[in-house]
Amino acid sequence: MIELQDIEKALPRVRKVAVETPFSYAPRLSEESGYDVFLKKENLQTTGSFKIRGAFNKIASLGEEERAKGVVAASAGNHAQGVALGAKYFGIPATIVMPETTPLTKVDGVKSYGAEVVLHGSNYDEAYAYAVKFAQKEGRVFVHPFADDDVIAGQGTIALEILRQCGDDKPDAVLVPVGGGGLISGIAVAVKALSPKTKVIGVAAEGAPAMKLSFDARKPIDTTGVRTIADGIAVRDTSPKTLDYILRYVDDIVLVSDDEIANAILYLLEKQKLVVEGAGAVGVAALIHRRLELPEEAKVVTVLSGGNIDVTMLSVIIEKGLVKSYRKMKLVVTLLDKPGSLMRLTEILKEAQANIVQIGYDRTSLDLKFGDAYVSIALETKGKEHQQLIKKLLHDNGYRFEEEH
Amino acid sequence: MIELQDIEKALPRVRKVAVETPFSYAPRLSEESGYDVFLKKENLQTTGSFKIRGAFNKIASLGEEERAKGVVAASAGNHAQGVALGAKYFGIPATIVMPETTPLTKVDGVKSYGAEVVLHGSNYDEAYAYAVKFAQKEGRVFVHPFADDDVIAGQGTIALEILRQCGDDKPDAVLVPVGGGGLISGIAVAVKALSPKTKVIGVAAEGAPAMKLSFDARKPIDTTGVRTIADGIAVRDTSPKTLDYILRYVDDIVLVSDDEIANAILYLLEKQKLVVEGAGAVGVAALIHRRLELPEEAKVVTVLSGGNIDVTMLSVIIEKGLVKSYRKMKLVVTLLDKPGSLMRLTEILKEAQANIVQIGYDRTSLDLKFGDAYVSIALETKGKEHQQLIKKLLHDNGYRFEEEH
Repeated sequence: MIELQDIEKALPRVRKVAVETPFSYAPRLSEESGYDVFLKKENLQTTGSFKIRGAFNKIASLGEEERAKGVVAASAGNHAQGVALGAKYFGIPATIVMPETTPLTKVDGVKSYGAEVVLHGSNYDEAYAYAVKFAQKEGRVFVHPFADDDVIAGQGTIALEILRQCGDDKPDAVLVPVGGGGLISGIAVAVKALSPKTKVIGVAAEGAPAMKLSFDARKPIDTTGVRTIADGIAVRDTSPKTLDYILRYVDDIVLVSDDEIANAILYLLEKQKLVVEGAGAVGVAALIHRRLELPEEAKVVTVLSGGNIDVTMLSVIIEKGLVKSYRKMKLVVTLLDKPGSLMRLTEILKEAQANIVQIGYDRTSLDLKFGDAYVSIALETKGKEHQQLIKKLLHDNGYRFEEEH
Repeated sequence: MIELQDIEKALPRVRKVAVETPFSYAPRLSEESGYDVFLKKENLQTTGSFKIRGAFNKIASLGEEERAKGVVAASAGNHAQGVALGAKYFGIPATIVMPETTPLTKVDGVKSYGAEVVLHGSNYDEAYAYAVKFAQKEGRVFVHPFADDDVIAGQGTIALEILRQCGDDKPDAVLVPVGGGGLISGIAVAVKALSPKTKVIGVAAEGAPAMKLSFDARKPIDTTGVRTIADGIAVRDTSPKTLDYILRYVDDIVLVSDDEIANAILYLLEKQKLVVEGAGAVGVAALIHRRLELPEEAKVVTVLSGGNIDVTMLSVIIEKGLVKSYRKMKLVVTLLDKPGSLMRLTEILKEAQANIVQIGYDRTSLDLKFGDAYVSIALETKGKEHQQLIKKLLHDNGYRFEEEH
């Protein structure tokens, strides 16, 4: 097992490629949660994620001869970019194995750091198995995304920064995303050595609870599958190595749902002006949705571990978030077969100052009388009361309608 | 006119509410632009914009008695929040006049700082005129968004931070968004006093060119209207006060289009993990689209002035950006009236690994033969070549289709 000094040794190393990311107080989130909340913005890290720290420390720790042969990893995400950039720094070859279904943007992202990409297998497990075999065959080092002491020591450097950035007033708790457990293992080792009073709390996705189940059972438990928008922590099986660290140093693990994570992503986008991926937003999800039992006004640091979220996903999260927060409304209105029915509808919407953003028209549905038609409209609205006003106006004018969710 | 010392005096004042925002090197943007680019992240400022600096400095500069009466401003945007927060800090009343069409979220945002909101007029000019009259009637100070020396001095504090954050290696150029001209006036005064070699370059929106026209003509020119997604710099008339500063201290003003601004917003979202509003992204737009004539590898700082962009707008920018960058494709395919035509279409799309995100079906269009139908589909694609492959497959299988843009 690594100790504080391994992490302290890793810090000047990783500093060659990883910046000290900003750390700041979040007033609104503090007000809403009842704690004093600080954000550690690892989404602003080089490559958009903390993963560069561990990957770089691993590669930097290798003997020169060993390293020269090059490294291999399996990942379609942040770890891939970390390993690729680390290899580029040392001028050594890196082969990243990704599942065949990996989006081109992710493939290109890794290639842009000069790594070779091999597409193999229809899922992560198959890519992983192939990468391990490939590394053995080629006599190269396989860089594991979390079950590796040098990787864990690299991730732990975040804790050194947090504790320095906190000054004399050490935090009461640090919230850390948990998937494979590499990040929280490293952070917990450093935090418990330097500030024993600080609780280290893991936050995992309900759709990927392996480490939470293992933590509760105090033994490794694997799951049969994962399903969460937080792909960075979507890990199916429990690593005995990181579980050892977690059972020794971590105080608790809590779960958050995909809806809560999506809320947190939108919250960070709107209120903090930050793009944070699902895995990076779980701590904020736990704060907003009150999943924690800490003393009032406790000083809580949450690690925004990365920002590599697909903008398509971001767009979906925004859409759903707008509907949920009453800023968008979708209605299907039945137009009666009489002159002016559509015009009157548009008049009402104008009176109500509801901006139409999308409109569809259907006269062929089987449950309509001849001549009647459905109009589906999406409206920009100003809040719950505004939506109620619009619905009242439609109702008072004799329109039948249904709200879509 | 203010001088450096006015800005230096403002800095400890504004520090009571405004943080020193992060400043960092942007490797990818440097590579793409050919300069050494640094970002000053004022979008991460309290209230999400630099405006708090000027508004707070103004309120802090007032005599105690004068201040106690309260302040008035006209704004539906960042200035409103700055004035509201400043007033809250001093515990004095603030009345913000906003046009009647202001979205509820903006109204609520300002109210959450404890300010009184008056909705008046159908546009900014009417709200502005009312606010000035209201302030006179009530004997309160009207806080102008830019044509005010104390406001300008407050904005100038950004330059002090930039020059300190640059260390000994002062920048060759600073890019500053230009609307009313308050921000660039303050920054230019400080920069020209402390680092005369540094060029101060304004970037304005093509749809709001008043200050650019005035700069070129060396006299105030008003325009008849503004239209740009960069609402923070959508100013119609030129203030003689800020024009004086600009003619004296600013080296050049360049223009960027709305499309270029939208590109820059998406770029910052994806590559920098930052939410930046239109006005804040104009400098990056000028860099990406090569609107500048600076020596190769010049050290360029661009001020990301704010992050208060509506998420609905963000969602539209993402959608359009995906289509433009070949990550989304919209096709209208004609289905022939023979069994299996739709099934074969879905087979082809599966073979091509194109993910369907939206589908529409229409059999009633006048230009269709009886039995034929249009299917409109939106696809997630992996790039230009992938789109060409899909189109080739459709073509080879006898489908007629059109691409929507």
